[in-house]
Amino acid sequence: MGAPFQPQSHAHPERAIAPDSGPLVNVTYDAFGTPGVVRLMLNRPAAFNALSEALLDALHTELAALETSDARVVVLAGAGRAFCAGHDLKEMRAAPSLDYYQALFARCTKMMLTIRRLPQPVIARVHGVATAAGCQLVAMCDLAVAADTARFATSGVNLGLFCSTPSVPLSRNLLAKPALEMLLTGEFIDALAAKHQGLVNRVVPLDGLDAEIAALAASICAKPRDAVSAGKTLFYRQLDMGVEAAYQLAGQTMACNMMKESALEGVQAFVDKRPPDWPR
Amino acid sequence: MGAPFQPQSHAHPERAIAPDSGPLVNVTYDAFGTPGVVRLMLNRPAAFNALSEALLDALHTELAALETSDARVVVLAGAGRAFCAGHDLKEMRAAPSLDYYQALFARCTKMMLTIRRLPQPVIARVHGVATAAGCQLVAMCDLAVAADTARFATSGVNLGLFCSTPSVPLSRNLLAKPALEMLLTGEFIDALAAKHQGLVNRVVPLDGLDAEIAALAASICAKPRDAVSAGKTLFYRQLDMGVEAAYQLAGQTMACNMMKESALEGVQAFVDKRPPDWPR
Amino acid sequence: MGAPFQPQSHAHPERAIAPDSGPLVNVTYDAFGTPGVVRLMLNRPAAFNALSEALLDALHTELAALETSDARVVVLAGAGRAFCAGHDLKEMRAAPSLDYYQALFARCTKMMLTIRRLPQPVIARVHGVATAAGCQLVAMCDLAVAADTARFATSGVNLGLFCSTPSVPLSRNLLAKPALEMLLTGEFIDALAAKHQGLVNRVVPLDGLDAEIAALAASICAKPRDAVSAGKTLFYRQLDMGVEAAYQLAGQTMACNMMKESALEGVQAFVDKRPPDWPR
Repeated sequence: MGAPFQPQSHAHPERAIAPDSGPLVNVTYDAFGTPGVVRLMLNRPAAFNALSEALLDALHTELAALETSDARVVVLAGAGRAFCAGHDLKEMRAAPSLDYYQALFARCTKMMLTIRRLPQPVIARVHGVATAAGCQLVAMCDLAVAADTARFATSGVNLGLFCSTPSVPLSRNLLAKPALEMLLTGEFIDALAAKHQGLVNRVVPLDGLDAEIAALAASICAKPRDAVSAGKTLFYRQLDMGVEAAYQLAGQTMACNMMKESALEGVQAFVDKRPPDWPR
Repeated sequence: MGAPFQPQSHAHPERAIAPDSGPLVNVTYDAFGTPGVVRLMLNRPAAFNALSEALLDALHTELAALETSDARVVVLAGAGRAFCAGHDLKEMRAAPSLDYYQALFARCTKMMLTIRRLPQPVIARVHGVATAAGCQLVAMCDLAVAADTARFATSGVNLGLFCSTPSVPLSRNLLAKPALEMLLTGEFIDALAAKHQGLVNRVVPLDGLDAEIAALAASICAKPRDAVSAGKTLFYRQLDMGVEAAYQLAGQTMACNMMKESALEGVQAFVDKRPPDWPR
Repeated sequence: MGAPFQPQSHAHPERAIAPDSGPLVNVTYDAFGTPGVVRLMLNRPAAFNALSEALLDALHTELAALETSDARVVVLAGAGRAFCAGHDLKEMRAAPSLDYYQALFARCTKMMLTIRRLPQPVIARVHGVATAAGCQLVAMCDLAVAADTARFATSGVNLGLFCSTPSVPLSRNLLAKPALEMLLTGEFIDALAAKHQGLVNRVVPLDGLDAEIAALAASICAKPRDAVSAGKTLFYRQLDMGVEAAYQLAGQTMACNMMKESALEGVQAFVDKRPPDWPR
């Protein structure tokens, strides 16, 4: 949901805030100087990238389009000062009906689950505030790198709207008590706390954020595509299973993986003590 | 279970130990100077608040009575030097039969699950030792704040009685290996380790403990009641589900939440850039 | 899986590397000077203890033999410079067929699950590199103690073979994002990071590793056997259940535990303020 986030004069102005213009999601190929990396940038900076219906749809469309693309890694970023301030509360308040809200959260969930279903790893690039559904977006990504200027809150409860849908990925990334504390208090945590609690993988100074994202993305791009995509899918599927069923699925997945040309070459190269000869 | 906790002369004497007197659970309304906060204080200080059958029943009764009360936040505390030393081992040893023990653990579980079923968040205020079922009590609470004098152990194994029931919430608060280490060794961890491992949310000096509890409780009391209670219920229900079912329930919960007067007012106030006008 | 681990001249030579000789698993009773402790040492130092089919079988055989033995604690260690470098990639590459790989991962899984099914706690003693299935072995153990010289990676993805089976215990020991980072990047983490992330319980200097293992094992050996074994079994069974079913099983387990002579004596001794009189 939208968050009680008010611009603060001392916040770091990564870029000047201008009236929103251009497409709702800016798509950059070979982003961060790395072939295969696609950056999707939420582009409603004046609204702190609040997830209006139009932005939810645009983001879903761009994500879904990547499913069959050549992209190897997707980076989710936000234009302007904030990463994402959650739902667009003005729009949301304008049409109060149960049907509308059910449809809205279903629409949002559909987008969120697309991140998980994508064959490519999705990395959140969090340079500023991530609140409510914006915080959910970070939790939903496979990996997340934050600048030390980033802050995180599930702040809906401050408005009387508990962050129920954000609690789904939050409680699957953080331990129970830290997750509940964020959800019940709506208070901000800083980037280091977010790292300690499992919400982000790495924290770096703001001016090193793109370099860190580039390094992480390049590391993944250097691996064969099929191993990465089969692995991501397996990871989430086995998580919802008991340990024996999980092992059965994982063993089957790994046997199929090993029969791929890329793995056969990779393992042979290791045995031969030479670099693998994979097509780019 | 009861713990091999022996009073130590160098332990911090928060209050002098006197023979137990008064009700088994002291109930204070508007506790910590905060309207809406109810403090339930285990009151068997000479027995380190060991959970006798009578105390289990008294605690269950007081908790259950809050379910339909005006209380907004419940704080669980312990009188005297310890928070809670687990089951009353003398009583437990006096009546050895399988039937008796089954009934005893069922009675304890019933109380523990009432904490989770309460619409209000329950905060553990841990100023001293929390062992065995006392440690379980901390894990079972939604939130926990510890003084730096607190120590935690699932120490039943030291007596040959593995803390099986405590392992249920412990393993849902901590990661697997730290939880197993506590359960298999029975050794104490201090308050900072408890925070790092997820058993408590915050650690403060003993003389700042009540102020920290007050601040945390007040933060929750400032939120609309229905958002908090629906959110707490949703949090635990969705945790036991696969991610898609969890999202479906969460979306439905949030749509209903948004239709409440408090959320409509909260969101409108945010749009209007004014504080929400909620009845106290 | 096997890991792209290459010997490095500056790695700490705990013992000189000699051609592999002797049994594939060295079994030591009353290890670390502690009666009841059995050490199983992977003994293919020249191959960095890679898990060949023969070693998988030998390890499974030795583990299974302990199920009905007097052993109280099992310690898993590695001879030579590495703890374990995962599957034997040369062997694995020599027989490429889906049937073969399915059988191989099933064989490995069978061994891994034996660790969990053993009545005794199994402690990983990690002094060096633990990669791929070697890292899985650490995650699968109930407890793990690492030297500060240890390093951990699920490095299969570097060869195009995502560590799917290792992801099963990894994702049940670590939080989601740190686990995915290891699996997707294949990068090493050091011992302290492994502790912070939940993969190991303790980190000590290499020359204190055996003393730390001895202390941890002795602590567990001091507890009654039946409490420890019933507790270990319960811990993993209840983890896969909803919280209410988990409590029901745990309460039943604890009631049975309490009826054992060792628990009755342990609790009586506590009430009497004397040490318990347990047979060794």
